[in-house]
Amino acid sequence: IPYEELDCVINGEYTVGCRREGDDVYLPFSFISKYFEVYGKLVQNGDDTRFEWSHSYSHVYVPDGTYSPTGIFMSFEHYNVEKRDRVKCISAIEGVPISTQWGAHGYYYPIQIAQYGLSHFSKFLTEKPRSSIVIEDAEDDRAADQWAVVGQRGTVSSVIDRHRNTHVIEFDTSDSIHNPGIVHQLENIIFGFLFFDIRFENNGSVTVAMEMKGRPNRLFYLHYICSENVLAVSEDNVYYGIGLRRTWGRVTRDLMVDAQKGIMMQLGKKFRGSRLVPLRVISVSVRGHGWIDNITFASSAHLEQMYDAADWFVRHQDNKGGWPIMVTRKLALGRLELPPGWYSAMAQGQAISLLVRAYDRTKIRAYLDCALRATKIYNIPSSEGGVRAMFADKYPWYEEYPTVPSSFVLNGFIYSLIGLYDLKTVAPPEEARDTESLYSTGISSLKALLPLFDTGSGSVYDLRHFTLAMSPNLARWDYHTTHINQLLLLSTIEDDPVFEAVANRWIGYMKGKRAAHN
Amino acid sequence: IPYEELDCVINGEYTVGCRREGDDVYLPFSFISKYFEVYGKLVQNGDDTRFEWSHSYSHVYVPDGTYSPTGIFMSFEHYNVEKRDRVKCISAIEGVPISTQWGAHGYYYPIQIAQYGLSHFSKFLTEKPRSSIVIEDAEDDRAADQWAVVGQRGTVSSVIDRHRNTHVIEFDTSDSIHNPGIVHQLENIIFGFLFFDIRFENNGSVTVAMEMKGRPNRLFYLHYICSENVLAVSEDNVYYGIGLRRTWGRVTRDLMVDAQKGIMMQLGKKFRGSRLVPLRVISVSVRGHGWIDNITFASSAHLEQMYDAADWFVRHQDNKGGWPIMVTRKLALGRLELPPGWYSAMAQGQAISLLVRAYDRTKIRAYLDCALRATKIYNIPSSEGGVRAMFADKYPWYEEYPTVPSSFVLNGFIYSLIGLYDLKTVAPPEEARDTESLYSTGISSLKALLPLFDTGSGSVYDLRHFTLAMSPNLARWDYHTTHINQLLLLSTIEDDPVFEAVANRWIGYMKGKRAAHN
Ligand SMILES: [Ca+2]
Ligand SMILES: [Ca+2]
Repeated sequence: IPYEELDCVINGEYTVGCRREGDDVYLPFSFISKYFEVYGKLVQNGDDTRFEWSHSYSHVYVPDGTYSPTGIFMSFEHYNVEKRDRVKCISAIEGVPISTQWGAHGYYYPIQIAQYGLSHFSKFLTEKPRSSIVIEDAEDDRAADQWAVVGQRGTVSSVIDRHRNTHVIEFDTSDSIHNPGIVHQLENIIFGFLFFDIRFENNGSVTVAMEMKGRPNRLFYLHYICSENVLAVSEDNVYYGIGLRRTWGRVTRDLMVDAQKGIMMQLGKKFRGSRLVPLRVISVSVRGHGWIDNITFASSAHLEQMYDAADWFVRHQDNKGGWPIMVTRKLALGRLELPPGWYSAMAQGQAISLLVRAYDRTKIRAYLDCALRATKIYNIPSSEGGVRAMFADKYPWYEEYPTVPSSFVLNGFIYSLIGLYDLKTVAPPEEARDTESLYSTGISSLKALLPLFDTGSGSVYDLRHFTLAMSPNLARWDYHTTHINQLLLLSTIEDDPVFEAVANRWIGYMKGKRAAHN
Repeated sequence: IPYEELDCVINGEYTVGCRREGDDVYLPFSFISKYFEVYGKLVQNGDDTRFEWSHSYSHVYVPDGTYSPTGIFMSFEHYNVEKRDRVKCISAIEGVPISTQWGAHGYYYPIQIAQYGLSHFSKFLTEKPRSSIVIEDAEDDRAADQWAVVGQRGTVSSVIDRHRNTHVIEFDTSDSIHNPGIVHQLENIIFGFLFFDIRFENNGSVTVAMEMKGRPNRLFYLHYICSENVLAVSEDNVYYGIGLRRTWGRVTRDLMVDAQKGIMMQLGKKFRGSRLVPLRVISVSVRGHGWIDNITFASSAHLEQMYDAADWFVRHQDNKGGWPIMVTRKLALGRLELPPGWYSAMAQGQAISLLVRAYDRTKIRAYLDCALRATKIYNIPSSEGGVRAMFADKYPWYEEYPTVPSSFVLNGFIYSLIGLYDLKTVAPPEEARDTESLYSTGISSLKALLPLFDTGSGSVYDLRHFTLAMSPNLARWDYHTTHINQLLLLSTIEDDPVFEAVANRWIGYMKGKRAAHN
């Protein structure tokens, strides 16, 4: 093809090298992609190469049926909360993630905890059944024979636990972490999830020894110790506090996440997860004086993880019905700030969605009662420490970030509404009147204000531009798709066709379509 | 580097032929320009050819000083209202344009009339002084000698007009249009504007004969006749009604516009203005019994045109202080409709801006009184036939199109505010209290709601998406620049830096900049 180089002057400001073929001008994708923020790559398919242009990078999940408050939560089966860099680790004291997103020290972030629970519940409903192997339930006469007292002296036996009405393994040896302890050797355990029930008389620990791939292969130790200290690391030893454990309780662990978070703590951002390839579990060992039962390795532990999250909410709900967030949150380049102790309507809503599902499966009232109490904060104005904002003194809005002035974050508001929907649907009607009213008020506000989030080529994340008279805060594509996924969910439970219409228009924006200009 | 053809798949939907040079991919501008609606052209400069890329097509006028209510109106000196296709003609009865934009029959559209006046006033202030030649003021003893009675019999003489205390030409001949009349031959008149003072006893007409370029050159006649019929055409004769004219009045005409509009009426869209090239004015002739004075050819007639417009507003103001618009206006694909008789805050505001300038130059109270009365409609809600809308029951807004539900057109609102500003600045303070209050209320609403017009890559024309829960109505680039020009004007009269900040951000959008995403 005959062609020549040609300078292209962009808006009179700078020059880009182009190509010319007769009257046709060709512009380099390197310029186009930066100027318009679009994506593209050369794709080889056999002998054929083509260039694939994408206006956006994320994925819309079109619901395949009516949303159910007791089913999969949106498309959360695709979430991997605990893998995120901003999750410091899964606390073995609480069984829930600890966030470092806005505080490097780590804090419990109820939204993250609820999403952890909801994602595992959704994975439970969508994945094929798990495989598992119980390596110890102490019911066999010779159960204690599998345990070897190594290093310092000690005893091990199978005994009846009267409270739980089952046999358990009692062990008694030095609680020193330097004591190899009483060891249960294992073979061919390739499952990455472990859970067990445990109680200690005073102090002690449980250690899982794993073989990791390397040159040569190396041993790696996960220690679960009686401590309120969440996480510590020393070379190939990672220490997770499990609290005091003076009463029976279950510990559920994702061993690879535990290993990865430990190494990440040592190496920081230098860590590449791929460097850690587990080969097998070598042994489980115990120290101190205590009792253990139902030691199980499994290919997943979604329900256990979900209940760990739901139980956290029951345990930590305060007398206002909320879960105060103990970290400073700054928005809008610092022009908005929430000092520690704020509530989030999104946290309340996501917690409710989780608690409703826990209640539905167990019929344990504590979950339902907790969810019902969680709605109280929806009624408290942001200016009084709650989450309720008003747009133009007219439209109530439940705030993900209850700043003053308000920020009107869209996705958090919709999550708060989904929680209300879940609860009003599952709770006995006479107990759900306030929930019902909060929901219908919120839906009305959403219908009224949704157009203000539509830029004609995408969506805005919030309305800070309105409250702070600043530049609009455009939603990046993954938030834009969250908006769409949420609207598609609402379209299956609300009669108004506006939700589907907006969702479809917004899907078009992801392919470069735009609203018409006059 | 080898250069080869390459298929590019756009969002998985269709394929565009591209070019590849190693790892560099080049896309055709024909695709880019359509996909993103950007502009570009090859520009030859000597031996050098380059491609000029433009994100937008219109021009921002940065004000070079503080806006003055008695000076140039925005950048209206660049407007050519009467040249627009949607202007049927300049009525010779009223001296103002007649619109066909939303009604093919033609109607008086106060916004267009005010813009006609304001543009001519602004041109008057910015153009160099005009040239003119008075071909008849009847003050010369031999004045009547210049007139020849042609065709049917008649008389012509110079007489004193007692009311006006000046000599005028009295003429008396048949008023038939077939009568060649009493003719004043002219030489070397190349000015395109004509005005004269005239009074008829009963019936009559004034005809201007022009030579137009052609093969061969041809004669062309503009007839100004005593008639309420605005415009008629027959081959090379164009007939403009000038009303009855039983009392003295001035007729001011742009001869080329009169010729063009006449031919456009005959030929419709086939007409190309370039086909009509005037060479010279041949003669002025009169018919019937009447008096004429001050026949003047000029290179422009801006002030005369401006006062024609201002006087129209004084003459046609109704008892509510408004100028009802007698045409149906549909918006939002027919979902909003204004039946004939609606008022427009933009019309009121632009009229006020014009009247204030007319008052400032003349000190004629009628102009000021008319402007003050025009503010009354700002207080009447749209639902009661006025122009006042409320955003979310909180922010008053003066509507260009007072639809129910409201449309919140931005540029019309700001024009309505500029009118108020002009009036409150020029009127005696004790008469301007309501105006002042309407203005400050409006500015507060504007500051509050302006962010809602910001899409992060352009602006919306109105807020119909909010009131009708529909797709946003993006402003095309010329409306976007009107927004910017208006904000820059406000930035010179209001202390709040927000107007300049928004204007500068919006200027950036015209060069492809975008608001940040999160
Ligand atoms: Ca047991
Ligand atoms: Ca005279």
